Amino acid sequence: MALALRLLLAFLVIGSCIAADNIDLWPMPQSVSHGTQKLYIKKDITMSMVGSTYSDEKSILKDAFQRMVDLITLNHVVDGINPSSSVLTCVNIVVHTPEDELSFGADESYNLTVPTTGDPLYAQIEAQTVFGALQALQTFGQLCYFDFTSRLIELNSAPWIITDRPRFPYRGLLIDTARHYLPVKIIKGVIDAMAYSKLNVLHWHIVDEQSFPIEIPSYPKLWNGSYSYSERYTMSDAIDIVRYAEKRGVNVLAEIDVPGHARSWGVGYSSLWPSESCREPLDVSKNFTFEVIDGILSDFSKIFKFKFVHLGGDEVNTSCWTTTPHIEGWLKNNHMNVSDAYRDFVLRSQKIAISHGYDIINWEETFNSFGDKLDPKTVVHNWLGEDVAPKVVAAGHRCIVSNQDKWYLDHLDASWEGFYMNEPLKGINDTKQQQLVIGGEVCMWGEEIDASDIQQTIWPRAAAAAGN
Amino acid sequence: MALALRLLLAFLVIGSCIAADNIDLWPMPQSVSHGTQKLYIKKDITMSMVGSTYSDEKSILKDAFQRMVDLITLNHVVDGINPSSSVLTCVNIVVHTPEDELSFGADESYNLTVPTTGDPLYAQIEAQTVFGALQALQTFGQLCYFDFTSRLIELNSAPWIITDRPRFPYRGLLIDTARHYLPVKIIKGVIDAMAYSKLNVLHWHIVDEQSFPIEIPSYPKLWNGSYSYSERYTMSDAIDIVRYAEKRGVNVLAEIDVPGHARSWGVGYSSLWPSESCREPLDVSKNFTFEVIDGILSDFSKIFKFKFVHLGGDEVNTSCWTTTPHIEGWLKNNHMNVSDAYRDFVLRSQKIAISHGYDIINWEETFNSFGDKLDPKTVVHNWLGEDVAPKVVAAGHRCIVSNQDKWYLDHLDASWEGFYMNEPLKGINDTKQQQLVIGGEVCMWGEEIDASDIQQTIWPRAAAAAGN
Repeated sequence: MALALRLLLAFLVIGSCIAADNIDLWPMPQSVSHGTQKLYIKKDITMSMVGSTYSDEKSILKDAFQRMVDLITLNHVVDGINPSSSVLTCVNIVVHTPEDELSFGADESYNLTVPTTGDPLYAQIEAQTVFGALQALQTFGQLCYFDFTSRLIELNSAPWIITDRPRFPYRGLLIDTARHYLPVKIIKGVIDAMAYSKLNVLHWHIVDEQSFPIEIPSYPKLWNGSYSYSERYTMSDAIDIVRYAEKRGVNVLAEIDVPGHARSWGVGYSSLWPSESCREPLDVSKNFTFEVIDGILSDFSKIFKFKFVHLGGDEVNTSCWTTTPHIEGWLKNNHMNVSDAYRDFVLRSQKIAISHGYDIINWEETFNSFGDKLDPKTVVHNWLGEDVAPKVVAAGHRCIVSNQDKWYLDHLDASWEGFYMNEPLKGINDTKQQQLVIGGEVCMWGEEIDASDIQQTIWPRAAAAAGN
Repeated sequence: MALALRLLLAFLVIGSCIAADNIDLWPMPQSVSHGTQKLYIKKDITMSMVGSTYSDEKSILKDAFQRMVDLITLNHVVDGINPSSSVLTCVNIVVHTPEDELSFGADESYNLTVPTTGDPLYAQIEAQTVFGALQALQTFGQLCYFDFTSRLIELNSAPWIITDRPRFPYRGLLIDTARHYLPVKIIKGVIDAMAYSKLNVLHWHIVDEQSFPIEIPSYPKLWNGSYSYSERYTMSDAIDIVRYAEKRGVNVLAEIDVPGHARSWGVGYSSLWPSESCREPLDVSKNFTFEVIDGILSDFSKIFKFKFVHLGGDEVNTSCWTTTPHIEGWLKNNHMNVSDAYRDFVLRSQKIAISHGYDIINWEETFNSFGDKLDPKTVVHNWLGEDVAPKVVAAGHRCIVSNQDKWYLDHLDASWEGFYMNEPLKGINDTKQQQLVIGGEVCMWGEEIDASDIQQTIWPRAAAAAGN
């Protein structure tokens, strides 16, 4: 596995090439068998879709095929001469369903066969959905390498018969554009690399206390909280990112983290702060606070079409609520203490999100504090340690595992071995409860990284988790 | 300047955007005047060549124009509506010479005007050569920024009248693919960034004692000295890199560093080593050594068309020559000491390079040891300190300045201020002698960097030197 990881890193970050005599696939498919014959990839290898129900009107497969071909050349000039035999001329892709709207739980299974006989000789991919076919193309690409003798792309150890399906429907990576702004191009690069590792959810932690980089048309002064005039995303940028991700089989999960982690909101609308001198959490006493949340989620719902939205809810320090007179008064009038207010804030925000069609994900503090009050469909996002997931699923909630000691990428001392060995189902023995663990997520918090080193910090450890 | 550098860094590495109300050009053109009017760049801005002698058959200008347009959007979606006035619809480029073979000393001067009146309103570039026009397009791009209100590319402070020409004909950056292999894609990325800063020579230190990554058809076992099977460049890769660079106005200077820094050569041909146990410098006593040098330079001459080749000559530890019996005997028979042998090796290599049509560049130790014997056309490449350049030009040789204390990028403690303040003409007062300083070069030696951090280590300090 060390070798596989090293090679994967080479692919992702350094762009080097798989050595000719190794067989390395990552993540390892569910079932792999192979032979011993070398094949040559025809220089102008083509893609066909004979037998498909799917029409590829959006050019999802066609573009993915071209990206795969570009990737396996690794910028080398392929100027060898096609030999007369053992030449793979085509990849035929059979997709059984016409739909290509990416959604949670989409069937990503595939079969990939690379035979050694046939005239013409072609590889065959079979998948229920176009998103399974995308995964198959990633696997096919990993079989190929540029050979410095033939000056051709070659493929060793054919015939191959590979059957694959993901273990979990949610395989996430968090990026954080609030602590450091990440240009659109960098985010797209992260999405490219996620696709190589078959990760399928980009958790976009868009805003936080430090900055509010995204445009919210309903409340246009919110992005006054951006770091600078230019460190911003327009709604069109967000749509562009979502479309880019979807074409690669990657869902985008948007997060607004309330009521804590939201100080930047008040730069544009200072009444969201408890006071000028005490600026977070968001003012629980004002309807305006929830109107703004409603505006954000309304705008989000037009562009972030993933089933889930993430509402945060972690690390809420409520001291400003008790030291600000008008909030203190409001708490008294409503016979609430700050714990009640925190709970009500989260639940009220959940209702708003549900009204916009979302299922909710919340960080685990919400479950730890008032799990029995959460909307039953809430997905609890673990991060503090590995003990909570069994409790979450025992309570009937779904869970995403991101225990920080193993899967926080900003923990530079978290080893790739630790990333690999982390088991999302640890301590969960009941099969039905196991199914409530929808997957895991590695988290690249942005305090210590920026555009210049985000990829180098994410990989290869994120890939180790992807192999879990 | 700090601001200019910060913005340049943003452009190069982070890809952020120039703030709307600043005027920042880098390197600063020779002459700049401007007004106060804002213009909008038409969304489908076009390029024309009315009045040009140049035909752009190789699509040098057309591709550069498209790259410039892509760059100024910084991946934002430009979805604003073109206003009815103050819209720049076209950049007209007048190139006065039909030739587009890049060569040393090519005229890179240009005039760029951006008027505020005219129907249609268009910017005008005028240049002697296509390479001057490329520089003008870089400057034009730096005037433009994405505006988050109009959702258009805008250009402030028009009208602009800019006249520019480089101070030096040689503005170099060294990369080193022997200490760490750099994938072709990474090298192309470095070339892209050089073009943004108007650097025009990529000094490719291809091989060294650690590895020999490039294919030499005349002696095909030389690349047995590569780090691995895949960490290699084919001749086609090298041609691809040279063409890529030339299309961006960047020359590629190839180096083989002899007789020291060549231990890797012997992996494929061990008789190039003095002995199995004493492996460098190259064996001065064998004709085969010079046959291999001839083979390499013969192959180089087919692909590296720059006027110069770099023959190294630095840091030669000759102890293996005196401790290896057959070389010791050869020295005696030829009545030479090791200093004589070092001199003869360098001069014999120079003659071979000249026979293949090259002018030679050598590191300064050759000048320091036997400057009066060097071919008169030798360009002496300074690196040890700032004192040698005056001596070199006083002796009538040309010089490139790279004093390591200021312009070695692997010196992480060398500040950008130091890069900026370094003066290639320091201590040279005679005008004719000043003209012998053909320029400067910043050096990104590869021991401590690889593909993952080369760009981050080169910039922004290299840009500071480019502003010199």
